[in-house]
Amino acid sequence: MKERKKTRQIHIGDVAVGGGAPVVIQSMANTKTADVESTLAQLRALAKAGCQIGRLAVPDSEAAEALKAIVPYSPLPLVADIHFDYRLALKSVAAGIQALRINPGNIGSEEKVRAVIDAAKDADIPIRIGINGGSLQKDLLAAYGNTAEAIVESALREVKIFERYGFDRVKISVKSSSVLKTVAAYELLSEKVDFPLHVGVTEAGTLLKGSVKSSLGIGILLNEGIGDTIRVSLTGDPVNEVIVAKEILKDLGLRREGVEIISCPTCGRTKIDLEKMVNEVESGLAEVRPKRPLTVAVMGCEVNGPGEAKEADYGIAGGKGQGLLFRDGEIIGKYKEDQIVSVLVEEIRRNEL
Amino acid sequence: MKERKKTRQIHIGDVAVGGGAPVVIQSMANTKTADVESTLAQLRALAKAGCQIGRLAVPDSEAAEALKAIVPYSPLPLVADIHFDYRLALKSVAAGIQALRINPGNIGSEEKVRAVIDAAKDADIPIRIGINGGSLQKDLLAAYGNTAEAIVESALREVKIFERYGFDRVKISVKSSSVLKTVAAYELLSEKVDFPLHVGVTEAGTLLKGSVKSSLGIGILLNEGIGDTIRVSLTGDPVNEVIVAKEILKDLGLRREGVEIISCPTCGRTKIDLEKMVNEVESGLAEVRPKRPLTVAVMGCEVNGPGEAKEADYGIAGGKGQGLLFRDGEIIGKYKEDQIVSVLVEEIRRNEL
Repeated sequence: MKERKKTRQIHIGDVAVGGGAPVVIQSMANTKTADVESTLAQLRALAKAGCQIGRLAVPDSEAAEALKAIVPYSPLPLVADIHFDYRLALKSVAAGIQALRINPGNIGSEEKVRAVIDAAKDADIPIRIGINGGSLQKDLLAAYGNTAEAIVESALREVKIFERYGFDRVKISVKSSSVLKTVAAYELLSEKVDFPLHVGVTEAGTLLKGSVKSSLGIGILLNEGIGDTIRVSLTGDPVNEVIVAKEILKDLGLRREGVEIISCPTCGRTKIDLEKMVNEVESGLAEVRPKRPLTVAVMGCEVNGPGEAKEADYGIAGGKGQGLLFRDGEIIGKYKEDQIVSVLVEEIRRNEL
Repeated sequence: MKERKKTRQIHIGDVAVGGGAPVVIQSMANTKTADVESTLAQLRALAKAGCQIGRLAVPDSEAAEALKAIVPYSPLPLVADIHFDYRLALKSVAAGIQALRINPGNIGSEEKVRAVIDAAKDADIPIRIGINGGSLQKDLLAAYGNTAEAIVESALREVKIFERYGFDRVKISVKSSSVLKTVAAYELLSEKVDFPLHVGVTEAGTLLKGSVKSSLGIGILLNEGIGDTIRVSLTGDPVNEVIVAKEILKDLGLRREGVEIISCPTCGRTKIDLEKMVNEVESGLAEVRPKRPLTVAVMGCEVNGPGEAKEADYGIAGGKGQGLLFRDGEIIGKYKEDQIVSVLVEEIRRNEL
């Protein structure tokens, strides 16, 4: 991996973004913001899953009004997502929101953008300039087509307005639903500005396909040192966005925590029910928060099994109806197939909590 | 994306790998190879899903014997996966297999490796040198630790043996269960050899986490121009490996075919049941094989909806209880929420088959 690009640092509530801070995970509630109870419940679920910043759509006055009852009780600092009507941004700020996201392409005149900037300045909160391939200004589309260049040009145009009014607590996103266009836009933008970048592929799709798309776009960029906060965008329960985001950061060595389970794909050599066993290990360890980050290998055969199991902190190398249990590279016992997972979970609970 | 690295070309059956050929998707059956009927059924399912090369574990004589009844009826060219016992490789060749995969780290002496090479030479088939982080030779582990360097050194050592015996129809893999180690190993190897590379992250895990891990490792490498054939490695039904592999290639612009569905993540602005709608579109179009590659956008609101829907070949931009249907950037109608998906599917069936 390349060294992470040095960006300026902003804070959303007490969460630092950019400037060398660890990459931050964020997600967006898909409840009606006006439904205070449901929204708070989802924010709590997101926080529990490991989300660090929450975002709420503010499509109307009712939603902006609800922020007053949400912000003080939210377990996460919140970003109000504003489109079309700049007055909703002003109301969100008045309700105590910790950051704004505007897509200047649909906010309208520079005066309106300026009113939002002034409000944010007074409240001492940052603004995300969130450009989307799907909502570019007409003149940029005419000049560049729907390209990475058009998206970046749109972002730079807004940055100029913000700078003109002396506001630099800015975070930028330049998302597209195309992985390649997203990657190209962030690469280009990262060369041109040192504001912290919010990275994601937009409208990524359903759980599996969306996770692939997000992993590709976010992964390629993080591997190039680009990205200060990430959002995995999936159709459905946003808790899955957080699960996938955590997996991406863990796999890229940007976060070490909890238990990493590795398992073999199973093949004609496998003589135990490995899929069942891995699922049992996953559920047995789901709530386990070990003191140190742990790698647990669950392997089905004698080919790669002992090697991988030895490398891991804990490992199972399966044989016919039984398996070897490893800890820190040493065999600690041989157990029957139907017992080995509970012995493993018990060992980890005893030694690692 | 970087330009794809020029590698030599080999053929597995009639499938070209390397040398500028499109990136090939492969997977591995997880049936008992000795169970001919189950294995053939799974190979047919893999082929139907879009797999281009199949791999079978050959852990014993029974499996090698079964190849005689599998190879002639397989819809895919096949690779026999051999560990420990080089005689199983010889039997696989005798059974007509289209390629071998050996992990020289566990095959034993150079004479045994040579016997395998001679058999492959006579049969005119390629060999994959498949190095795994979990089964490195002891002297390399001692000299380098379990690092990318050790994995690559192990591969280069084998390449020398193959070259000494005048055999160059070689494909190489240097997998690890760590994404970063896998990426580092392939980057290093790609600088040193021009053999085609089989890319994957090994023991990637269960469906969701394994897909993230594979997308990261394979995606970062393909984006750097590295990789001639890919295998997504998941615990469970290998058909999912093919689905994820196709998604990776499509998202990186390395393959255009079928229907790409993009959908928004839903938020507090969404006034229709978008998740249900996207799933209906996915299932309605699952068997549709359009003449041209199509992008279909299913969007929940008026913010990014019309823009993304217009960019796509077909699009739905949802509103309250209804939605606009787009085709090639033009609105072709406004339909009720419970009708719009079937109108969309009907339109595509009428115009694109």
